[in-house]
Amino acid sequence: MTKPTLRSGERIDQLYSQDIQIIQSPEVFAFSLDAVLLAAFAKLPARANSQTVDLCAGNGAVGLFMSHQTRGQIAEVELQPRLADMARRSVVLNHLEDQMTVYEGDLADVTQWIPKDSVDVVTCNPPYFADLPDSQKNPNQYLAIARHEITTDLATVVATTSGLLKMNGKAYFVHRPDRLLQLLTLMAQHRLAPKRIRLVYPKPRKEANMVLVEAIKDGKPGGLRFLAPLTVYDDQGQYQPEVGRLLYG
Amino acid sequence: MTKPTLRSGERIDQLYSQDIQIIQSPEVFAFSLDAVLLAAFAKLPARANSQTVDLCAGNGAVGLFMSHQTRGQIAEVELQPRLADMARRSVVLNHLEDQMTVYEGDLADVTQWIPKDSVDVVTCNPPYFADLPDSQKNPNQYLAIARHEITTDLATVVATTSGLLKMNGKAYFVHRPDRLLQLLTLMAQHRLAPKRIRLVYPKPRKEANMVLVEAIKDGKPGGLRFLAPLTVYDDQGQYQPEVGRLLYG
Repeated sequence: MTKPTLRSGERIDQLYSQDIQIIQSPEVFAFSLDAVLLAAFAKLPARANSQTVDLCAGNGAVGLFMSHQTRGQIAEVELQPRLADMARRSVVLNHLEDQMTVYEGDLADVTQWIPKDSVDVVTCNPPYFADLPDSQKNPNQYLAIARHEITTDLATVVATTSGLLKMNGKAYFVHRPDRLLQLLTLMAQHRLAPKRIRLVYPKPRKEANMVLVEAIKDGKPGGLRFLAPLTVYDDQGQYQPEVGRLLYG
Repeated sequence: MTKPTLRSGERIDQLYSQDIQIIQSPEVFAFSLDAVLLAAFAKLPARANSQTVDLCAGNGAVGLFMSHQTRGQIAEVELQPRLADMARRSVVLNHLEDQMTVYEGDLADVTQWIPKDSVDVVTCNPPYFADLPDSQKNPNQYLAIARHEITTDLATVVATTSGLLKMNGKAYFVHRPDRLLQLLTLMAQHRLAPKRIRLVYPKPRKEANMVLVEAIKDGKPGGLRFLAPLTVYDDQGQYQPEVGRLLYG
């Protein structure tokens, strides 16, 4: 096996629960729990002719973490060349070249690579923060673009997701609870019917700080379910068992 | 103290946490945990010149359970004469005649009693089930009207709520999670900005079966928070401490 070339500041981290190795750099991009939770929440068809697309892919964490679910294809779409390059090298590192493809470019142009109405599952961990003029941005441009709606926005993400999906294809998003209303409104405008929502709470007796949403393209309205809450830490600051299993197996 | 007249099948129950007595009848209407949770979730202004309205009041449980929060007026609006009569007698039973008024009639006509744009807080525990032709209705007409949208519907409830509220007045609803999306959509159409949502789960690791929503009339969009989850029972089937306190003090 050829060891991948690591660039300055990069290291190889591991998601032990799935034996996935991933190239990261704290200065550029490192996956967080959000990616692990989104990958576990998404349900991919196992069949080899299925197509999954992860938008705003960053260093490829979500796609890599979902890869054990399917024999089908997973496409990663990432705008930032530095991150797309990390994702590509992680695909090689995990011997997933036959299953995963990294596309470098704007998600709004995704149909140059992947036809409209052709995809079974779209996942996305989008930038969380609206790019308002007064919002505190990270002076590090890599991280700023990953966290703030500088190069895309939620409306574009939802429209792109819906455009890619087949009828009855599924969309999975992770976002902040204070954006959920906007996300649901945009979904309604783009033929996406939300079906399952799971709130994620940092610890007992605290407000939710993350939300996972499943929607079906052209799904019939109604029947929205709120799954059991997911609480990350217990009162002692230890991972709750479910989160521990997702991280360490 | 004059004992109230009890009609056939009626009994006096007590909410121990608040020392409130309430006339109920299993054949006609008995309050459930939903009413207790809604009354605790709602935040009423304490001042004596405040006005709160409870729509779909049933036997008056929500209003009675909120009465300790305020020195202001609480109006109960109930369509069914039999239930409004129970509510009136419970008001007397608790010596709350100076604070609470029961209006018997259709909530759509509420402005015959209470002016538009005049109310600080509206609460509502509406009928949960859409009155679809194929829905299983309770053959008991009292319970059927309380549970199914036979004599009103969510659109009317939300429009009426918004009409009653002052600017910055607050609405509090309890509903089923599978109606939340419709509720939020209707709120957006009627100047109600949701601000706090709390999911209620029957027991650990189960899906939510109730949702509490706070909205502000003409509130600015954004900033929606999901409070810590409320789980009713523990794994042994005992009330969780928070619920036990709401019921028993």
